[in-house]
Amino acid sequence: MWVYLNNQFVQGDQAKVSVFDRGFLFGDGIFETLRIYNGRPLFLDRHLDRLHQSCQVLSLSLPAPEPAWEALLQELVKRNNIEHSMVRITVSRGVGSLGPDPTGCEDPTVVIFPRPLPQLTKDQKEPGVSLTILNTRRQPSSALPSQVKSLNYLNNVLAKQEAIEAHTFDGVLLNTDGYLAECTTSNFFFVKDQRLHTPSLQCGILPGITREIVLELAKEEGIEVQEGTYQPEDLWDADEVFLTNTGFGVLPVTTIETRPLTSSRERSMTKMIQHMYEKHIAETC
Amino acid sequence: MWVYLNNQFVQGDQAKVSVFDRGFLFGDGIFETLRIYNGRPLFLDRHLDRLHQSCQVLSLSLPAPEPAWEALLQELVKRNNIEHSMVRITVSRGVGSLGPDPTGCEDPTVVIFPRPLPQLTKDQKEPGVSLTILNTRRQPSSALPSQVKSLNYLNNVLAKQEAIEAHTFDGVLLNTDGYLAECTTSNFFFVKDQRLHTPSLQCGILPGITREIVLELAKEEGIEVQEGTYQPEDLWDADEVFLTNTGFGVLPVTTIETRPLTSSRERSMTKMIQHMYEKHIAETC
Repeated sequence: MWVYLNNQFVQGDQAKVSVFDRGFLFGDGIFETLRIYNGRPLFLDRHLDRLHQSCQVLSLSLPAPEPAWEALLQELVKRNNIEHSMVRITVSRGVGSLGPDPTGCEDPTVVIFPRPLPQLTKDQKEPGVSLTILNTRRQPSSALPSQVKSLNYLNNVLAKQEAIEAHTFDGVLLNTDGYLAECTTSNFFFVKDQRLHTPSLQCGILPGITREIVLELAKEEGIEVQEGTYQPEDLWDADEVFLTNTGFGVLPVTTIETRPLTSSRERSMTKMIQHMYEKHIAETC
Repeated sequence: MWVYLNNQFVQGDQAKVSVFDRGFLFGDGIFETLRIYNGRPLFLDRHLDRLHQSCQVLSLSLPAPEPAWEALLQELVKRNNIEHSMVRITVSRGVGSLGPDPTGCEDPTVVIFPRPLPQLTKDQKEPGVSLTILNTRRQPSSALPSQVKSLNYLNNVLAKQEAIEAHTFDGVLLNTDGYLAECTTSNFFFVKDQRLHTPSLQCGILPGITREIVLELAKEEGIEVQEGTYQPEDLWDADEVFLTNTGFGVLPVTTIETRPLTSSRERSMTKMIQHMYEKHIAETC
C-alpha cells in the first residue's frame, strides 16, 4: 500500500511518525474519512471544509498541500489502484512541546492512506442492523468541541467495545444530559408518523456529512424533517431507524436492544432515503 | 537521546511508530510521567499500579517488559546519563483495526523517553504562580473514565491554550456539574482555617500520585484534611492554594485570576507541606 506522508508517497511499512509527534503523545490532531467512488473522492469540498474547521478550533495551522488536495487524492487512488474504497486523512500538530502547551509547534504531520469500505453482511444491509443504548456518554462540547473530528477517539473506542459486549452492530451514545446523540461512527435518524427526526447539532454530535446530505435531500423531496432533542423512549417508539455514515451511506436498523421496531418490515421511508442518496452519489461522481 | 521502543533502545531520531498505530490514529493508549531523582525512578510502584489500572479499564493487555520495569528505567537513566529528570512511559494499543473496534489488537507499543523537569522561574517557585478559572470543562468519567491517564489529552491541550491566553501559569477546570476539578497537568489543594481541602476523586479528577502522597503525609502529621465537592467561590475565599504534580512537586499559588489570595504572604501550611514532601522524597530515594 502507498501512503502519503508529509509531501511524499512511501510504502505502508515505511510510513512512520516520530514517537514525539503530538498525534501519538496526546491525540493532538484531527482526521477525515472520505469515500472513493468510481476512483474519485466523494464530497471532497465538504470534507475539506470540516477538516479546516477542525484545525481552526484547535489553532492548528495547516498549509495547503503540494500538490493540492484533489490531485493528491487522485495520485493516491492511482498508485493504490482503487476504485471503491475509503481514504483517511490524518493531520497531527507534529513534533513540539512534550507537555500540553502546543505553542511553537508549526509543522503539522499529514498522513493519507486508503482503507477498505465497511464489510457488511447481506443481512446487515437488508433487513438491517441492531443497536443498543450505551452507558458510555458522548463527550460533551464543553470538554472537547463536538464539531471537531479529533484524534481523541477513545470515547468512541470504549463505546464500540460496549456495543460489541452487548452483541449489537453498534450503540447509541446519549449526551451528558441524557438525550440521544449519535452512534460510535455514525449519525442516526428515526421516522415517526412519516416525519424524519434526527438529533440537532446542539446535542453535541459530530456534524456528519452523510447526515447533512440526507437532510438536504429529504427537504428537497418535501419530507418533513425535524432536528431536535430526543430521549431514548423516542427511539423505542419509532416506526423506522437508520444510520448514516460516509462508509456505508444509509443503513437500516431493525432492532433496538432486542426489541424489533414496530413497523420495521416495511421501512418505506428508509428505502426512499437510501435510493435518493445512492442516486445523488452516482450523479455527483 | 536514547529512547526505549518495543524491546530495544534506539536513538531519538530513529524512534518512530507506524502511522497505523492506534496511539496515533485514535489516542488509543495511556501514559505515565515519573520523576527521576538522584538517578532513581521515584514512586515507581505507584506509577506502575496506575499504569496497569489504566490498561485494565481500556482492556489493553500489557505484557511485562523484558527486562523488568525497574531495570529498564535504570538502563534508560544510565544511557542518557540523567540524575534529575522526568521520564514518560507511553503504551498504545499498537497496530490493529483502522476503526474504533480494538478487537484482535494484541501487540501494544511501548515507548519510554526522558524529558526535562518543568522549567520554573524563581518567582514561580517563590512566591508562586497564578491561576484562572477556565471555560473548558474537565471531560466527564461517563465519557472517558477519569482514573485513566490516556493519550486522549486534547481536553488538557485546549485548557492549557485557554490559560495561556489568560496570561496565567495554569487554569482550573470545573467538571460538567460546575464543581472544581483539577488543573491542566496538576491537582490542587486549598487551605481554609488551617484545614486542607482538595476535590474528591468523585469530582472526575485524575488520581494524582503527588496528590495521594500529600494526603497521606498531611494525615500522618495530624493536619485536618477534607476531600470534597467545591465551587469556584471556595477558591476565592481560600487562605492558601497550592498545586501538586510529579514534575514540580508542591507549588504555591499566589493569585486566582488577578485577585491575590487573602493571606497569601504567609503560606505557612503550603510551606509545611512542601517541606514534608521534599523530605519524604529524599528519604524514599
